Amino acid sequence: MKILRVSDAISIKRSVDSGTEEQRIAVKKIIEEVRVRGDEAVREFTDKFDRVNLASFLVSEEEIKEAYELVDSYSISVIQEAAANIHSFHEKQLRPTWITTEENGTMLGQKITPLDSVGVYVPGGLAAYPSSVLMNVLPAKVAGVERIVMVSPPSDNGKLPPAVLVAAKEAGVKEIYKVGGAQAIAALAYGTETISNVDKIVGPGNIYVALAKREVFGDVDIDMIAGPSEIAILADETARPHEVAADLLSQAEHDERACSVLVTTSEKLANEVAEEVLKQLEELPRKDIASKSIEDYGAIYIANDMEEAISTINQLAPEHLEIITVNPIELIGKIKHAGAIFLGRFSPEPVGDYFAGPNHVLPTNGTARFSSPLNVEDFQKKSSIILYSEQALNENAEKIAAFARLEGLEAHARSVEARFKK
Amino acid sequence: MKILRVSDAISIKRSVDSGTEEQRIAVKKIIEEVRVRGDEAVREFTDKFDRVNLASFLVSEEEIKEAYELVDSYSISVIQEAAANIHSFHEKQLRPTWITTEENGTMLGQKITPLDSVGVYVPGGLAAYPSSVLMNVLPAKVAGVERIVMVSPPSDNGKLPPAVLVAAKEAGVKEIYKVGGAQAIAALAYGTETISNVDKIVGPGNIYVALAKREVFGDVDIDMIAGPSEIAILADETARPHEVAADLLSQAEHDERACSVLVTTSEKLANEVAEEVLKQLEELPRKDIASKSIEDYGAIYIANDMEEAISTINQLAPEHLEIITVNPIELIGKIKHAGAIFLGRFSPEPVGDYFAGPNHVLPTNGTARFSSPLNVEDFQKKSSIILYSEQALNENAEKIAAFARLEGLEAHARSVEARFKK
Repeated sequence: MKILRVSDAISIKRSVDSGTEEQRIAVKKIIEEVRVRGDEAVREFTDKFDRVNLASFLVSEEEIKEAYELVDSYSISVIQEAAANIHSFHEKQLRPTWITTEENGTMLGQKITPLDSVGVYVPGGLAAYPSSVLMNVLPAKVAGVERIVMVSPPSDNGKLPPAVLVAAKEAGVKEIYKVGGAQAIAALAYGTETISNVDKIVGPGNIYVALAKREVFGDVDIDMIAGPSEIAILADETARPHEVAADLLSQAEHDERACSVLVTTSEKLANEVAEEVLKQLEELPRKDIASKSIEDYGAIYIANDMEEAISTINQLAPEHLEIITVNPIELIGKIKHAGAIFLGRFSPEPVGDYFAGPNHVLPTNGTARFSSPLNVEDFQKKSSIILYSEQALNENAEKIAAFARLEGLEAHARSVEARFKK
Repeated sequence: MKILRVSDAISIKRSVDSGTEEQRIAVKKIIEEVRVRGDEAVREFTDKFDRVNLASFLVSEEEIKEAYELVDSYSISVIQEAAANIHSFHEKQLRPTWITTEENGTMLGQKITPLDSVGVYVPGGLAAYPSSVLMNVLPAKVAGVERIVMVSPPSDNGKLPPAVLVAAKEAGVKEIYKVGGAQAIAALAYGTETISNVDKIVGPGNIYVALAKREVFGDVDIDMIAGPSEIAILADETARPHEVAADLLSQAEHDERACSVLVTTSEKLANEVAEEVLKQLEELPRKDIASKSIEDYGAIYIANDMEEAISTINQLAPEHLEIITVNPIELIGKIKHAGAIFLGRFSPEPVGDYFAGPNHVLPTNGTARFSSPLNVEDFQKKSSIILYSEQALNENAEKIAAFARLEGLEAHARSVEARFKK
């Protein structure tokens, strides 16, 4: 693992995979077909890409029951406890509709309303990600979204992974379709005979899913397009090298393009972590992926002092930030940009990935400068409320009309004045 | 103005102007040039498109002073009062960083941080829109954004409209550049020698500005791309026809593609409003624009009852909604989708455009189904805070590790377990 001085310019920005021209054309075609031919097209694409012919896309009660029999009861209880924690943290984000009232009769405010319907995409492939189901569904549930639809590509046996179904059931999803890829996004955006359209689509997916989401954006809302995962660890000499190394590797095992960075004031720690990373790498099942990630995107930066280290972190704006220093909580105020901040050695990043409650859908690729973790407000919208009484309008009519005329909008001025003439 | 039954399918969706291929290529080229050649390119494009050669893009203190001399004192006082109202309404949206604490030492929360820097685009052209300056700048100011940069294309005398400069000064902008078009967006996104780059760009503009914002999105954040303005009025037999007509026209005068719709339970009102619209149209300075808008996108819908009328409104999800009925406040709870809701006959829409305080940047084209008015949170982001104590991690380590292994991520499990071994 390379060790550098922070004075070397650093960035964890990686080019975003925007797909090839061929992929974009393929995705446009899939969307067009699904818009025009509905279920028939969805069925054909599922046949073609997932190599399975389904009598019905909808997951049955039977399949849910079967899933509960296939997952061991300890895992079910862990999923349930994680769901409860995530639900509870997101509930604390809820805000009420509010108004202010003034003596002259003015009432102003913000009405908070949940979206009517949301689609959650859950990727298929070899691994099953029940945590992704919980993290994407529960904020929508807590927000009050009435209709939450889950879609996921079927395995070649025509089923979804049992742990994913258990997570969906625990999160309260009642409508699950075995459809994946761009055809699933198209169905969610424009509707088919069996799948009604939704207002917003969230959840990660492969390049076809990402391109399809970009394509339908505007007709429906989408969440951010996530890049590869990142961790930055800010540590001083009090950090234990084997813990820091384990945390860097937990990120590196995700993806060859994942990025794991240590920023430290201690040269000793830097050297020991570099050694530990190599040692622990040897024993990892996903050694190949993690090695490549560490080699290409891993780095250890040595800072002259804590100020310089923190300024480096703010420059990175990492998705995950661990602070393992003598007094991490004192540093929160200085952290300006990070998706999630993990404080102290007993808060390794997997605590947040699965269990603590805050969302694991976080801004990547430096977008923590202006983006937030997925949260309840992503599934609600605001409407301004404006009520002027006769007295309030009377007091202000002249000013409002003057402002309108300053902008050359006479009909605006007359709309106000119409109230006070016969 | 056409009168229809709501049973006729209705929609105010208009195709979004996504530009021609030529325009897209031109915009890409401008951005590329500004990225590579900085100020030099900005200067050339300003020369070419705005036909003015500027010694300096930066608006000087002198120019601000001059602007205050050119705007009459009543207008200045109106701008000041509007700014105070807008500031005050947006301040009420502020939320603190919060945490929860548990007995086992767990601490979870959301840290709220303003964006570092924001660019506000203010369109040029014939009309000056000081209200647009206030509405885009003040939420950023209230959010705590330290650096707010305004850009606007110069008139052929090399100046900006005085009312725009007054509004900028009143809103607290300290950095104003006389640059417009795609070159302004490129400069804000990537920086030049004189204009440092920002984290987010907001504000309306022409098709070149809109295309440029789309192009730089991802490298910086942008606000929504606004479509033409809309109003829907929900009225019963208690509404006054001349007021309703005036309100429809205040929207129609904006733009030939603006959309003005009345949904009413009263056939009598429908007929009288149609007549009033024709009458008032005759006397409008912007008659040509308003006529075209009313003809192409205006409509009066008659509903059988209030339930049907409200369901029509929710289908439209209008940018502006006026409710002029016998008891408008009782209907708020039934309105699911609207950018801003104006209650009662003394709350005509211009009250919100200029003065009351809520933002006039609102979701258009049916996107009120999933989008909100511009607000303070558009200029802040959240970071999750996660702190587990030794006890908390100890209590949950086994569960977290089990969840990680359920997803096949061994290094995640080991990162947790590393804390409890020598």
